[in-house]
Amino acid sequence: KRIAVLPGDGIGPEVIKGALQVLDGVATRFGHEFETIEQVFGGAAIDQEGNPLPDSTLKTCNDSDAVLLGAVGGPKWDQGKVRPEQGLLALRKAMNVFANVRPVHVYPGLEHLSPLKSNKVKGADFVFVRELTGGIYFSEPKERNEKRAVDTMSYTREEITRIVEKAYELASSRRRKVTSVDKANVLETSKLWREVVEDVAKKYPNIETEHLLVDYAAMRMISNPTSFDVVVTENMFGDILSDEASVLTGSLGMMPSASLSENGPGLYEPIHGSAPDIAGSGKANPIGMILSVAMMLRHSFQLEKEAEAVELAVFETLQAGYRTGDIYGGSGTLVSTKEMVNQIH
Amino acid sequence: KRIAVLPGDGIGPEVIKGALQVLDGVATRFGHEFETIEQVFGGAAIDQEGNPLPDSTLKTCNDSDAVLLGAVGGPKWDQGKVRPEQGLLALRKAMNVFANVRPVHVYPGLEHLSPLKSNKVKGADFVFVRELTGGIYFSEPKERNEKRAVDTMSYTREEITRIVEKAYELASSRRRKVTSVDKANVLETSKLWREVVEDVAKKYPNIETEHLLVDYAAMRMISNPTSFDVVVTENMFGDILSDEASVLTGSLGMMPSASLSENGPGLYEPIHGSAPDIAGSGKANPIGMILSVAMMLRHSFQLEKEAEAVELAVFETLQAGYRTGDIYGGSGTLVSTKEMVNQIH
Ligand SMILES: CC(C)[C@H](C(=O)O)[C@@H](O)C(=O)O
Ligand SMILES: CC(C)[C@H](C(=O)O)[C@@H](O)C(=O)O
Repeated sequence: KRIAVLPGDGIGPEVIKGALQVLDGVATRFGHEFETIEQVFGGAAIDQEGNPLPDSTLKTCNDSDAVLLGAVGGPKWDQGKVRPEQGLLALRKAMNVFANVRPVHVYPGLEHLSPLKSNKVKGADFVFVRELTGGIYFSEPKERNEKRAVDTMSYTREEITRIVEKAYELASSRRRKVTSVDKANVLETSKLWREVVEDVAKKYPNIETEHLLVDYAAMRMISNPTSFDVVVTENMFGDILSDEASVLTGSLGMMPSASLSENGPGLYEPIHGSAPDIAGSGKANPIGMILSVAMMLRHSFQLEKEAEAVELAVFETLQAGYRTGDIYGGSGTLVSTKEMVNQIH
Repeated sequence: KRIAVLPGDGIGPEVIKGALQVLDGVATRFGHEFETIEQVFGGAAIDQEGNPLPDSTLKTCNDSDAVLLGAVGGPKWDQGKVRPEQGLLALRKAMNVFANVRPVHVYPGLEHLSPLKSNKVKGADFVFVRELTGGIYFSEPKERNEKRAVDTMSYTREEITRIVEKAYELASSRRRKVTSVDKANVLETSKLWREVVEDVAKKYPNIETEHLLVDYAAMRMISNPTSFDVVVTENMFGDILSDEASVLTGSLGMMPSASLSENGPGLYEPIHGSAPDIAGSGKANPIGMILSVAMMLRHSFQLEKEAEAVELAVFETLQAGYRTGDIYGGSGTLVSTKEMVNQIH
């Protein structure tokens, strides 16, 4: 298996290093071979080549079986003509990873980290399926002059169908409930979205379907997070709501994501940012990246046993009380990125 | 002063009735005269005239000094060809109420109602200034066929300038901090938005300005709600974030809003919906509507003393322990809509 590795910026390289150590452990224990090829990406690539997504990086990604990405961005590149984020958007589009899968899981025993009351978040365990290569982030026209600016949100039936089907497939192996989020009382794209969901739902009579308006969904995410199983929505709503939901866990640093295409390689990255303020200080939580490796093993390589072994190792390490600073609530053992990796490994 | 009154649907008529009683009290106590003219609107108007915003209703609104609105919508009209919400959007547009002002205030002593830990929300007191008549809810083209749907998000410099100026004016009389929310790393409209904010900010050197990306704002709304004073943002982001924020207070039923135009009448409504499930049962919380009356007194009639008297009456009633069902935490005196109004009155 060939894996393209894009450390990126800030804490990206540190968490990637930890994740590769864990991957090595999996290879040894289960007798696999993983070939990893590191490539420059994001701000680092702007510095080196003036382009956040150099051709050679994209080629390596497309020629691989999966891509691991650390994190991109930082204030250093905020004022520049080209931003690291553009590389991320371009990579998603070029790899056609239209389905962003993001689990939101409140770990038993870590409820106290949540800004919400423990009884509100206890047992919350749901997954976002966010459309990632369409909608207002990519549609044309997109233009701006002195007086006026325009963005376009467009979706085709095909684009909606494939993401909604992913959601129903996922729900089949979970608690069999799909919550579709739109703004069908106002937006045309949402009306089409809702139509498609109704169509796809017919093929899954055992799965419960509900439609929420995005404003109400933003409320229920907080007032009743345990009411969700699979949440499917378009790109921008997914961006906002999945970030909102990630705060509920109180442990952003532990959250993985997978961005999947139809048949090509998947892209795996933690949801946290590049955290330039703590880069290099050994404070980064490597768990988001390590759990992204688990998602890669499951979704790109169909290595379910191996994925579960990684998840179990993370869970046991947390149960044993090891904590990086971001999830240290005053009890347990405060450890560095490296020590956390060694414990999980 | 002429006030157009639109009770609307569900609990709308009940809370309007309570609010008018309180307004009557203000008139008597302070020696004012308010003329109120009731008009049909929303689902009720669809039933009666096939149009959620009949011409006569709109004319009355435009000829008034202010408009009080209860709530619109309900499952009864969800499948119909025309929806009550369309009337609301049309009314906002026709009245040109581009500035939606929504306080988010966690009442001292009511922190326990929040889904968040009390120490997280204690002291949260901020205001949304949401652009209400532009952006993706109104821009053209907006179309849909079997295969594809399109919505357009467009903003002119003028549209952005007037709403941002409202935000800075408001911040001047508060804690002097403006948080502008956009998605400037992706959207052209957001880039223009940020440019305008930077321009307007120069005129207010004593006001602190910060820019947040919408996804991050959705997080900080929960993780650090006391960090906000005035939040200004475009229509859809404002829709999502202000609803998200309203949950923090744990008392949706108590939240008012004002939608203001340049020189014409303002539109005042509670943020809660029509709650058809409890309509007519005496369970509705009238406080959101009553505090909307206070906002009307302040913003449309410059009756600051009167506005404060209403707010004080609400506050004292809450302090005395009176609670409608939605804010009853097990202690205090559970009262009906009517009893709550009588206590405040
Ligand atoms: C960096 C940015 C373009 C990106 C997005 O909005 O998609 C990020 O916020 C994310 O959610 O992965
Ligand atoms: C009813 C709907 C069109 C409206 C909106 O989204 O503007 C509502 O959600 C609101 O926030 O007042």
